[in-house]
Amino acid sequence: METGKKINKETLRNDILRRLNNLTKPVGSLGYLEYLALRMGLIQGKVIPDLPEDKRVYVFAGDHGVVKQGVSAYPKEVTKQMVYNFLNGGAAINVFSRHVGATVYVVDAGVDGDFPIESPYLIRAKVGFGTNDFTEGPAMTREQALLCIEYGRKIAREAIEDGADLLAVGDMGIGNTTTATAIAVAFGYDINEIIDIGTPISTEELKSKKRAVLKAIEVNKPNPSDPIDVLQKVGSFCIGEMAGFILQAAEMGVPIIIDGFPTTAGLLLAWEINSEVREYVFAGHKSKVKGHKVILDTLGLRPILDLDMRLGEGTGAVLSMSIIEAAIKMIREMATFDSAGVSKGTDQ
Amino acid sequence: METGKKINKETLRNDILRRLNNLTKPVGSLGYLEYLALRMGLIQGKVIPDLPEDKRVYVFAGDHGVVKQGVSAYPKEVTKQMVYNFLNGGAAINVFSRHVGATVYVVDAGVDGDFPIESPYLIRAKVGFGTNDFTEGPAMTREQALLCIEYGRKIAREAIEDGADLLAVGDMGIGNTTTATAIAVAFGYDINEIIDIGTPISTEELKSKKRAVLKAIEVNKPNPSDPIDVLQKVGSFCIGEMAGFILQAAEMGVPIIIDGFPTTAGLLLAWEINSEVREYVFAGHKSKVKGHKVILDTLGLRPILDLDMRLGEGTGAVLSMSIIEAAIKMIREMATFDSAGVSKGTDQ
Repeated sequence: METGKKINKETLRNDILRRLNNLTKPVGSLGYLEYLALRMGLIQGKVIPDLPEDKRVYVFAGDHGVVKQGVSAYPKEVTKQMVYNFLNGGAAINVFSRHVGATVYVVDAGVDGDFPIESPYLIRAKVGFGTNDFTEGPAMTREQALLCIEYGRKIAREAIEDGADLLAVGDMGIGNTTTATAIAVAFGYDINEIIDIGTPISTEELKSKKRAVLKAIEVNKPNPSDPIDVLQKVGSFCIGEMAGFILQAAEMGVPIIIDGFPTTAGLLLAWEINSEVREYVFAGHKSKVKGHKVILDTLGLRPILDLDMRLGEGTGAVLSMSIIEAAIKMIREMATFDSAGVSKGTDQ
Repeated sequence: METGKKINKETLRNDILRRLNNLTKPVGSLGYLEYLALRMGLIQGKVIPDLPEDKRVYVFAGDHGVVKQGVSAYPKEVTKQMVYNFLNGGAAINVFSRHVGATVYVVDAGVDGDFPIESPYLIRAKVGFGTNDFTEGPAMTREQALLCIEYGRKIAREAIEDGADLLAVGDMGIGNTTTATAIAVAFGYDINEIIDIGTPISTEELKSKKRAVLKAIEVNKPNPSDPIDVLQKVGSFCIGEMAGFILQAAEMGVPIIIDGFPTTAGLLLAWEINSEVREYVFAGHKSKVKGHKVILDTLGLRPILDLDMRLGEGTGAVLSMSIIEAAIKMIREMATFDSAGVSKGTDQ
């Protein structure tokens, strides 16, 4: 079976490349767009991939006990306030999603507060009212960590069964770049290479952030060969649910676009659980948060956009949908040398 | 007057920045998108800029006598064949323009052939049937060089009078990266820093290309302080018309997006004639052609996209329209901290 699949995939890859090289352009001249078209063809198992018809971004919101340590420019309340902003359509992720024709879903993975409202775009998957401060002990229990994965998987499964065919992952949670840093350090990344501000904080506050991460590792000693242990000890509800979401989408063969640093921490957890997720993951953009590029490079993921953004919410991921769709349209709609009566070059 | 204008512009800039900083996001967290929104506001003279309603790309096509020297992977005939491909909607620029909602116009600036067809999207502005081989003498006469600028200006004027409010410049002409290199070298760029393949040619052919450029400079001795002399001696009809087009659009206050290396040579000519064009020009992408980044850096233009493309036609410029529009929608549609009831951070 495994061999048979590989041979078919090789044939498909060659067929896609032949098609790309027959389009009216010099070979390879559309650069990374050609790679994106190839990846989408391989994921869909088609030489000419379909355009996505139901694009969605899931913004996982949650609170992080570590904010007590003074690691963000914003008070914790902003997590909850921003959930309302998402549901009211006023946040950047709403604007960009409307721009590319995607739908925004907000997941309450662990916000410290209730949402006494009705909305088809609010998904209730709360594991707890914010995590514990991981500088003092584990962020959550192992049962809660497993529940994060389960909830994330369930959300992806229901989205895909409902028709979603291109997914983006976003994050909202004051303190989430601190948690993302702790997860990366737990997996062996050098803190000095990745520590950076998320929101605009002072040099002094950045030092607090670094101390908080180092203390979290020292106090909890997360086991890098057990991703659930890492999630439990230095993770958070929202990042854990992202990991489950990414795992499930990949296992169901649906492409997932990650966004900035926190969502990439979610990917790290998913990747450690099942490295085959790599076949289905795209990096929407390179965040200005320093550690983001370090991790993307290590995973071999090239970001589609590079606009010095550091907002999160899925904003970079959603904007990149426009580029992914352009790549699909290229292979779907461009004339071939034969059909257009254009002479081939010496590179053909 | 001049002082008054400056004060008003400074006020406008401050008003735009204040608005950007009041949107529900950390200050500066949307990075380059915030700069794009600021630029569009300054161009339009409004804190909250309008969305473009009539986006267009003008693809300037022409033949280059220097192709006799073996500088391209394609025969000269491809220029003409590709014009038909553009008019039939089958080229990459057509696909990407449909994707972003822009209209493609093809300008016959100097193709070696006639177009016995009727099309509202074909603009007849032929200065000649291809330029002379500039390794043997001037590419054109001074009168033809002036005519290029005049025709380019006329095309932009008519487009803008017709309603165009966001313009992109594209190029099609076998041999045009060789000509673009010659123009840049004439203006003082180091050939070794900018020479590269345009279409996929061999190392031997790349050497021919370099020899051709050096010979053009040696034979013609273009005067760098006289842009028309540079255009006449080592330019081409299509690149000359682009220069006039960019000049006119900037003078009429309409933003223009340049594409890859040949269109940037058109910008170089325009910039040398009137450096105020800089206020209206955006770099759509960074081409894979080596010299492109060198020139953009020198001009202080940051490319919006970086996708390893090297096709031309305006493809990178048109794709970037989606990002520019996202930036405008950001400042138009995002909620402010007050309107959304979100707490401000310590950065406010």
